[in-house]
Amino acid sequence: MAKYAIGVDYGTLSGRALLVDVKTGEELATAVLEYPHSVMDEKLPSGKKLGKDWALQHPKDYIDVLSYTIPKVIRDSGVDPEDIIGIGIDFTACTILPVKKDGTPLCFIEKYADEPHAYVKLWKHHAAQAHATKLNKVAEEMGEDWLALYGGKVSSEWAIPKVWQVLDEAPEIYDEADRFIEAADWVTWQMCGKEIRNSCCAGYKGMWNKKKGFPSNEFFKALDPRLENVIDEKFSRDILPLGTKAGEVTAEFASLTGLKEGTAVAVPIIDAHVFVPAVGITKPGEMLAIMGTSTCHMLLGEEETKVPGICGVVADGILPGLYAYEAGQCCVGDHFQWFIDNCLPKSYYDEAEAKGMNIHKYLRSKCEEKKPGESGLIALDWWNGNRSVLVDVDLTGMILGMTLQTKPEDIYRALIEATAYGTRVIIEAFKENGVDVNTFYAAGGISQKDPMTMQIYADVINMPVKIADCEQGGALGSAIYGACAAGAEKGGYDSLYDGAAKLGKVKDKVYLPNPENVEIYNKLFNEYKILHDYFGRGANDVMKRLKNMK
Amino acid sequence: MAKYAIGVDYGTLSGRALLVDVKTGEELATAVLEYPHSVMDEKLPSGKKLGKDWALQHPKDYIDVLSYTIPKVIRDSGVDPEDIIGIGIDFTACTILPVKKDGTPLCFIEKYADEPHAYVKLWKHHAAQAHATKLNKVAEEMGEDWLALYGGKVSSEWAIPKVWQVLDEAPEIYDEADRFIEAADWVTWQMCGKEIRNSCCAGYKGMWNKKKGFPSNEFFKALDPRLENVIDEKFSRDILPLGTKAGEVTAEFASLTGLKEGTAVAVPIIDAHVFVPAVGITKPGEMLAIMGTSTCHMLLGEEETKVPGICGVVADGILPGLYAYEAGQCCVGDHFQWFIDNCLPKSYYDEAEAKGMNIHKYLRSKCEEKKPGESGLIALDWWNGNRSVLVDVDLTGMILGMTLQTKPEDIYRALIEATAYGTRVIIEAFKENGVDVNTFYAAGGISQKDPMTMQIYADVINMPVKIADCEQGGALGSAIYGACAAGAEKGGYDSLYDGAAKLGKVKDKVYLPNPENVEIYNKLFNEYKILHDYFGRGANDVMKRLKNMK
Repeated sequence: MAKYAIGVDYGTLSGRALLVDVKTGEELATAVLEYPHSVMDEKLPSGKKLGKDWALQHPKDYIDVLSYTIPKVIRDSGVDPEDIIGIGIDFTACTILPVKKDGTPLCFIEKYADEPHAYVKLWKHHAAQAHATKLNKVAEEMGEDWLALYGGKVSSEWAIPKVWQVLDEAPEIYDEADRFIEAADWVTWQMCGKEIRNSCCAGYKGMWNKKKGFPSNEFFKALDPRLENVIDEKFSRDILPLGTKAGEVTAEFASLTGLKEGTAVAVPIIDAHVFVPAVGITKPGEMLAIMGTSTCHMLLGEEETKVPGICGVVADGILPGLYAYEAGQCCVGDHFQWFIDNCLPKSYYDEAEAKGMNIHKYLRSKCEEKKPGESGLIALDWWNGNRSVLVDVDLTGMILGMTLQTKPEDIYRALIEATAYGTRVIIEAFKENGVDVNTFYAAGGISQKDPMTMQIYADVINMPVKIADCEQGGALGSAIYGACAAGAEKGGYDSLYDGAAKLGKVKDKVYLPNPENVEIYNKLFNEYKILHDYFGRGANDVMKRLKNMK
Repeated sequence: MAKYAIGVDYGTLSGRALLVDVKTGEELATAVLEYPHSVMDEKLPSGKKLGKDWALQHPKDYIDVLSYTIPKVIRDSGVDPEDIIGIGIDFTACTILPVKKDGTPLCFIEKYADEPHAYVKLWKHHAAQAHATKLNKVAEEMGEDWLALYGGKVSSEWAIPKVWQVLDEAPEIYDEADRFIEAADWVTWQMCGKEIRNSCCAGYKGMWNKKKGFPSNEFFKALDPRLENVIDEKFSRDILPLGTKAGEVTAEFASLTGLKEGTAVAVPIIDAHVFVPAVGITKPGEMLAIMGTSTCHMLLGEEETKVPGICGVVADGILPGLYAYEAGQCCVGDHFQWFIDNCLPKSYYDEAEAKGMNIHKYLRSKCEEKKPGESGLIALDWWNGNRSVLVDVDLTGMILGMTLQTKPEDIYRALIEATAYGTRVIIEAFKENGVDVNTFYAAGGISQKDPMTMQIYADVINMPVKIADCEQGGALGSAIYGACAAGAEKGGYDSLYDGAAKLGKVKDKVYLPNPENVEIYNKLFNEYKILHDYFGRGANDVMKRLKNMK
């Protein structure tokens, strides 16, 4: 008798459900709902204006995703809800909201409906930068050793800066909130009727460490005396590891969605990290890059190593029993799109039209005629700063080697290569610090649509590149967590290792390094590294000085 | 009774005559002829293919210019040839041809009509690079002290590399030639029936020094034993200073053009240098930049100073009695055009069209909204290598500071600013070596058409920028030399200083530095200088290594 699991992938603009056969991996149905309120970065539903760098969401949208997509995948697949054994979700993070003890979001309470701080702060809410800067300064001054596990810097996107901003700007909301909770955990709570906290969000975004717990109350007090007991007052210290069951579907949630009461609900995970089991990674040494507007790198390891410039290392962060490392590049797809929008000349559109080709395809065809090193160009991919390994938002882009013969496709290709060199810097940083990287997987839009870029990556990093076979984003990964929450007895899996090995998928096409190209790219990478260190490590801080002059 | 002079400006593609009233400066008539054979860079008239980097011309075209344009300006102006007291010409250089003793170009002799080396080698014939490289190596090894007067490097465009190429590749032509002569001197010979050699071409392109003469026969012998007596065998050691009379119009030339026999013919000059009197410069310290596809800088001085990285310093090189310095930037207008052709996005054309604006005007309007330093960008203007002061053709372009918010106009403006910084580097090199620069003049296409660029130059170099008022290129300057060849007794001038002061012209509009902008550009120039030295002086030879990999 076939059994099924549902995964729900909560992205920035929409939520998508996928119903999967837990033994065959067959994807039977999918449904997507765009959030009715989308991202609120200018005003609240009431019309109230928001400040610069704000980005909010409405928690009702998340429930709407479930009540719309789950009945639809059940209906479209024709599966009996009896045979759906588990559900799991993945979510953007840190995407955090203030709620009452019973889980009611403060923004649902009428008197706070017009208060921006009562809403969900989306991951890309950047208005807490001043708080993050202060936090980093205090942490450094106090010699907090957990800081090194985050590459030496806490981001303004994380939980404590966001909560601190609420405290400073809307103390009444801060007081009124019984919890500040990740949306991933809150939605899980709505499904299983039980407040939980997952190790992935807590570890990467909430400064939690499995062995050492949270930073001390003294540290929080040093930030602001009112924050001394923030963990106990506003969060929870009970952290559930990934791959376990958070609870079971409640009667109320069953009636909302058509799922059966008692269906297993998985501990949720961040929307990037969920790709790791989705491509079948279960071992240390296998790096996954999720390549979209930016790139997120995931890597499992058996030890907790402080690798300079990574975004975080978290015990049980993806698979129970292993450390999960995260690193990142701020500007990948965004970089290519910038070029298309700002640098692609009219003549290329005219030529593409004359040939009846799409402009992207035309540009790619021009690029593909080029050999590595042929253009004489090299770029630093810092158009949006550098996350790993320099952790410096004030770095900017550079390109070098232009002559009067330089063509647009040369520049475009140099930008692609630059992001590949950036990935290699990250890989080498791991290796130099004793964390093995021996295989490379790519997921996300670029991996699916851009064979040339994938080949360049294979040649630059000199490793085969395997490609995720997930048409539905992270939803397959979430379904795997759902199947594991149910356990083998119910027809699922007792361990994530089994589930990922069975259901994780890569495409047949593997990009193999071309030895000739590898040799050339080794030389080019050496040049990149010299420039990377010259401009990135203080020898010439021209980028920062120019930014200051702006 | 009004008197007149004619100047003929021989450019790369055409020759232009201008008839001027020598007292009022009134420009009465002008006429232009495009060279019928233009630039031959692919094949001879016979269809014979030319090699890579070749660029030839046909000497008959130069005579056609005279026989067409001079009768036309006489006719159009209605002036009596009796009142035309002098004629002068300026020419591209080193533009050189092999001729017989009587002045007959070898390519006019039927048996050589199909021999490429029998034709005129145009200034931009670059196929003698190997010879120039060898020459520089030998000169350095032998410690030739004249080398420093040319910034340490002889260009492949100059006379000896070109002649040496003939010797190597077509020894019969070399043997057959009684002279290798600059086209400027050859055309003058055709007018006055007398072989001459001008100090400007000989000094800047022929390695002649007023005090020391030519390099020694030993040096030439070291290059190639067959070259030992090249100066005496193939050139002349009689050099005429600028501002003097080369001879008088012959009967034959009078009947060809309608000029009166006996009309004074001036010693000719290079087409860039001729702008100096045309803007009225007669004093040391007044720098002139001729800004076109590339920029040429002229400066007068009272002493012969070795300024590192300049193109040359020549006694009597422009005005008799003064040293004339030349420096250069390889890539100015070419640079801007590269951007327009390769980087200006379709959306800008669409927007320009919607506003009914020309694309150049639209781009400029976007640029003009920007303040110095606002973009955070800085570029090195080396798309075509660097002439002064680094003298390195293997350097390439760089741009730095891009973010996802960077717009095309930011990049365009950064390229313009980069060329202004490049000019400032040259100015500072002169000053640091004790050659004063206190005033700045600009001539050439960019100076006439691009007020924004001129204002940026004024702000970057912190000097007022005066603009040449020569609609007809260098022809006005040549007419001044013509008037001086005639002398005061004939109604002209006895001295170039008088002629230039009276007839040289600048526009009323002067670009004055804006003190606020100056302050910002001082900071940006410091950044440019750091990058200039880092990439240009050996700290990081990445540009060369990338070029080698191509």
